[in-house]
Amino acid sequence: MINKNLQIILKSRPKASISKQNFSLHQSEMPLPQAGEVLLKTLYLSLDPYMRGRMYGATSYAAPVKLGNVMIGETISEVIQSNNANFAVGQLVSSPHGWQQYAISDGNDLVALPKYDVSPSAYLGILGLTGLTGYGALIRHGQPKAGETLVVSAANGGVGSIVAQTGRNLGCNVIGITGGEKKCKILETELNIKALDYKDSNFSTNLKKLTPKGIDIFFDNVGGDIAFEALNNMAVHGRFLVCGTISFDRNAPQDKSHDRFPNAFAQLLIKRLKVQGFIFDELIDMKEEYHQQAIKWLKDEKITFREHIVEGLDNAPEAFMSLFRGQNIGKLIVKV
Amino acid sequence: MINKNLQIILKSRPKASISKQNFSLHQSEMPLPQAGEVLLKTLYLSLDPYMRGRMYGATSYAAPVKLGNVMIGETISEVIQSNNANFAVGQLVSSPHGWQQYAISDGNDLVALPKYDVSPSAYLGILGLTGLTGYGALIRHGQPKAGETLVVSAANGGVGSIVAQTGRNLGCNVIGITGGEKKCKILETELNIKALDYKDSNFSTNLKKLTPKGIDIFFDNVGGDIAFEALNNMAVHGRFLVCGTISFDRNAPQDKSHDRFPNAFAQLLIKRLKVQGFIFDELIDMKEEYHQQAIKWLKDEKITFREHIVEGLDNAPEAFMSLFRGQNIGKLIVKV
Repeated sequence: MINKNLQIILKSRPKASISKQNFSLHQSEMPLPQAGEVLLKTLYLSLDPYMRGRMYGATSYAAPVKLGNVMIGETISEVIQSNNANFAVGQLVSSPHGWQQYAISDGNDLVALPKYDVSPSAYLGILGLTGLTGYGALIRHGQPKAGETLVVSAANGGVGSIVAQTGRNLGCNVIGITGGEKKCKILETELNIKALDYKDSNFSTNLKKLTPKGIDIFFDNVGGDIAFEALNNMAVHGRFLVCGTISFDRNAPQDKSHDRFPNAFAQLLIKRLKVQGFIFDELIDMKEEYHQQAIKWLKDEKITFREHIVEGLDNAPEAFMSLFRGQNIGKLIVKV
Repeated sequence: MINKNLQIILKSRPKASISKQNFSLHQSEMPLPQAGEVLLKTLYLSLDPYMRGRMYGATSYAAPVKLGNVMIGETISEVIQSNNANFAVGQLVSSPHGWQQYAISDGNDLVALPKYDVSPSAYLGILGLTGLTGYGALIRHGQPKAGETLVVSAANGGVGSIVAQTGRNLGCNVIGITGGEKKCKILETELNIKALDYKDSNFSTNLKKLTPKGIDIFFDNVGGDIAFEALNNMAVHGRFLVCGTISFDRNAPQDKSHDRFPNAFAQLLIKRLKVQGFIFDELIDMKEEYHQQAIKWLKDEKITFREHIVEGLDNAPEAFMSLFRGQNIGKLIVKV
């Protein structure tokens, strides 16, 4: 086994929802670094909702993963052999080499981890693209002001929990939407964020009650019914940020009872809303600003984070699917 | 009759679509100006889609017209008696006194017309809020760049024709959506704008063909099916400007065959779109800039405009309803 590299391959494209059958485990030969290259051992793999989009054949905002290729993904990896003067053996890096135990790199796609007193896995969550996405988009597109009402969906998730705490630290009135009593309690006790349960049959009424002046900023990680309810409760000049549509399963049967598009659309005008879709790569210029802020908040205990760590690369497909069932609390990471 | 003031009153709120029964003609006493006031004679009344929203009981972006009150609207009026040193008899002003032949003002809500060599009615269209809305929103929210693809709905309308020509003058590839062969021809021959007929059964396919790289800016005056098709053809980083939802009749039966909200929503993220709803009062600071630009373009024959003038205030309700059937070509104005 020492000479093998366990990989998870995209075997087939999902027909409807994703399933375990879309993935296969593959034992490939151990790769060998050539001149200028390093051999990386994957320590942690980040699992993120956007990966689902790459499993389908159509180009979404990026090209799909090719059939037979290793699933894409960000990792924290350790350099275990080096033919590259920039990377010593033992160096920890963030790397884009996906769902596999080992990988080769010429170093151009690696970023050495800064030395903060946190677990390496934090660089996939609060100090990684997850944290940057939440903080950067809230600041840039949401332009939050103290006293404004900020509502965040999937508020216990990787991005959502950063958004909620950033808003709270900036003096916003923050309401976090999450599912079920347990998650609501965690949100209230660990993050000190007012929780709203979307599984409650009175969700719509409760949302209205909690936002009597309307929602100034809605940070949407979910789409679907929750997004629709939020859109109907926006304040004038509200900002509606579309970060994720985790509830949108493009092949799932749609609610055919009525067409909500015309009403949703009218809200945009009536409330003069700004709706902004975005992805993390357009926020990279804010990385330094965010790191400094996050480190300061961590030191001052003004921000906290949860990681939902799954052991073993072979458990990645099942863990990934659990994301879409809302089963993780905090940033979902595989310890490879 | 000389001592009477013909007014059009909101008699009842629409149950479903608006109808003539919602209005009544009323002969009131001729108003008399007190100290500091002027008596205005209405020359031209602007008819605009937003007025429909004020007929319903719910607050949209402004309070509704009260039952029994004169319908709101912008007019060009002449001062025919003056007890106000700022306004001489014979002065033409723009005024917000609505659907009536005469009105009293203390002058605070009047704007003296600048002296350009155009018909007074132009101050309700190309040099009024209509023109400013089209130009201002396109510049501010659309940020058009030469070479970009700009698609405008209701392109023969008051706002649409200004947007289309502004885009053309700035070097955009402009496509104007309008209904029927006659309107398409006018768009192409008078405004030199590529026309696309939404009544054509191949509308969706034709839109795709005309925008092979996607739509960079969609300026929407219509909503509904046209907006939905446009949303599905946006380019990455497209700007989708929601100016009007003339097709949205809040009480009309909706297409119940499928719910288009989830798909529409996914587009926002996939293409990282910015959707911006707006109304004209947030563009007032651009008025001077726009007037100077419009006057220059008029002199250089780089912009043209059509007015659809209806004679007689008593014809205003019928003319107003024709707006929602797409029967006007150019800015709809009543010569009172």
